[in-house]
Amino acid sequence: MENKPLILITNDDGITAPGMHALVHSLKRLGEIVVVAPDGPQSGMGHAVTISKPLRLSATEHFGEIKSYQCSGTPADCVKIAVDKVLHRKPDFVFSGINHGSNSSINVIYSGTMSAAVEAAIEGIPAAGFSLCDFDYHADFALAAEVAYQVASNVITNGLPKGVLLNVNVPKVEHSNFKGIKIGRQALAKWEENFDHRTDPNGRSYYWLTGKFKNFDAGEDTDEWALANNYASIVPVQFDLTAHNAIAYLNQWKF
Amino acid sequence: MENKPLILITNDDGITAPGMHALVHSLKRLGEIVVVAPDGPQSGMGHAVTISKPLRLSATEHFGEIKSYQCSGTPADCVKIAVDKVLHRKPDFVFSGINHGSNSSINVIYSGTMSAAVEAAIEGIPAAGFSLCDFDYHADFALAAEVAYQVASNVITNGLPKGVLLNVNVPKVEHSNFKGIKIGRQALAKWEENFDHRTDPNGRSYYWLTGKFKNFDAGEDTDEWALANNYASIVPVQFDLTAHNAIAYLNQWKF
Repeated sequence: MENKPLILITNDDGITAPGMHALVHSLKRLGEIVVVAPDGPQSGMGHAVTISKPLRLSATEHFGEIKSYQCSGTPADCVKIAVDKVLHRKPDFVFSGINHGSNSSINVIYSGTMSAAVEAAIEGIPAAGFSLCDFDYHADFALAAEVAYQVASNVITNGLPKGVLLNVNVPKVEHSNFKGIKIGRQALAKWEENFDHRTDPNGRSYYWLTGKFKNFDAGEDTDEWALANNYASIVPVQFDLTAHNAIAYLNQWKF
Repeated sequence: MENKPLILITNDDGITAPGMHALVHSLKRLGEIVVVAPDGPQSGMGHAVTISKPLRLSATEHFGEIKSYQCSGTPADCVKIAVDKVLHRKPDFVFSGINHGSNSSINVIYSGTMSAAVEAAIEGIPAAGFSLCDFDYHADFALAAEVAYQVASNVITNGLPKGVLLNVNVPKVEHSNFKGIKIGRQALAKWEENFDHRTDPNGRSYYWLTGKFKNFDAGEDTDEWALANNYASIVPVQFDLTAHNAIAYLNQWKF
C-alpha cells in the first residue's frame, strides 16, 4: 500500500499503559505507526517541557514490528524529540492516548495527553488526544479504541482547520448504552482542592493534593453534558489563548 | 488603612529570584501581600500539578515582615495550596512573576509563571503574570516593576472580565526608550527545536532541548510587535480553549 500516512502516537501514562496499546492496535490500519512515549507516568504534567535536565531516548520492543521509543521527558518533549531525532521529519498526524481518565472540560489544561496534541498542532500537524473516563489500569478500552479509530479516520480524510486540534473523551459505558459522538465546547468546570495533611516519620508535615470535580455549566452543548448522557465528546481546541473579546475593554484603561 | 486587598504573589523562578523580590516590593503599597512560591526553579512547567508525590510547605524569612512560604510543588500547586492551607480563603488578587525571560506569544503555553495566573483565574480570582524579556539573573527589573505596579493598580481598581487574566511582558529597554503599554493578541510564533546530542561518561546518549524562537506573525496588533517596538505588552488570556469557530465544521463529519 502506497502513501500510507506517518502517524506518531504518544501518551502521558507511559509506554507500557494498556490505553496506549489499545490506541496503537486500533490505528495501525490507518498508516505507518511510530510510538514515542514517556518511559513512565507523566499525568498532570500540563504543557511542561524539560529544559533543566537532559533527556534519554531509547528503542523498545513493546509493540513488536511497530517502531517504538521511550523518552525520559514529558509528552510535549516526546513530540519534539520524535520530530528531530526519531522521524527526522514531521509526522503527518499525531494521536495521543488513550488516557486512563477523563480530560474533559478544565482537565485539558492539566493534561499531559492533551499537551502532546497541542504541541503537534503548534507544529502544524493535525492531532487529537483520546481519553477514557475510567482511571482503572485494567479499564476496558474497546469502545474508546473504536471511537478513536472513527475520529482518526475523519482527521486523516478531512484534515483539521489551522491551529485546531481535538480533545476526544469517551464515557465509561457499556457498548449497548453508547449513544454516539457529539461535538461540543469545553464545559465551565473546575476542581475544588483539599490538601490532605500528614506527618512523616520524622515529624515533618507533608500534603497530598486531592480534589472534587465540580461542573458549574448547565449547557447541553458541553463535553460534560455529552459524557453524562453516554455520548463520546469532541471539543475542538486552540492554542491561541487570547481573550479577543476583552481587548476593547482593556483599551479603556489608563496607564 | 482599612479593607486592604489580600494579594497572593507567586512565580516559577523560585522564592529567591530577584524578579519576585522586585514584584513584591513594587506591589506592597497596593495591599496585604502573602508570598507562596516554589522552593526552586520551575521554569517550563506549563500547567503541571503534582499528583504523584506529596508536597512540602514551610514558612520563610525571605521578605522580612511580609509573610512568605516556600512549596516543593509547581506554580499551579502554589496557588492551590495557598488558598487551602496558608490563607484559608481565596485571595482578592494573584500576581505572578516577575519572570526572568519572555512569556509572550506561544510561551504562554509553556510558562509556569502564567500557569499560576491561569490557576487563579480558574478559581475566579483576578490575576496577571509579569515577565521581563531578559533571562539574566541580575537583570534590571526597575521598569518591569513600574509596569507591574500600573497594571496591578488597574486590575485592583477596574477588575477583569470573568474568565480573563493578563499576560504582561516588558521589553529589555532603557527607560528613556520605553514607549508605554499596548494591549494586543498572542502572536503566531513557535520554537523550532533542536536536540543537542551528547554522550555521557558511560557511553550512553543524552539530549538537551534547545531551540530558536520564530515569529510568523506580521500583525502590528500582537505582543511580539509591541515588544519589538519598545512597548510593554498586555494580552488578555482565557482558559476556555474551545475553538468555537470549528464546531460547525466538525458537525459535518460522518461517524
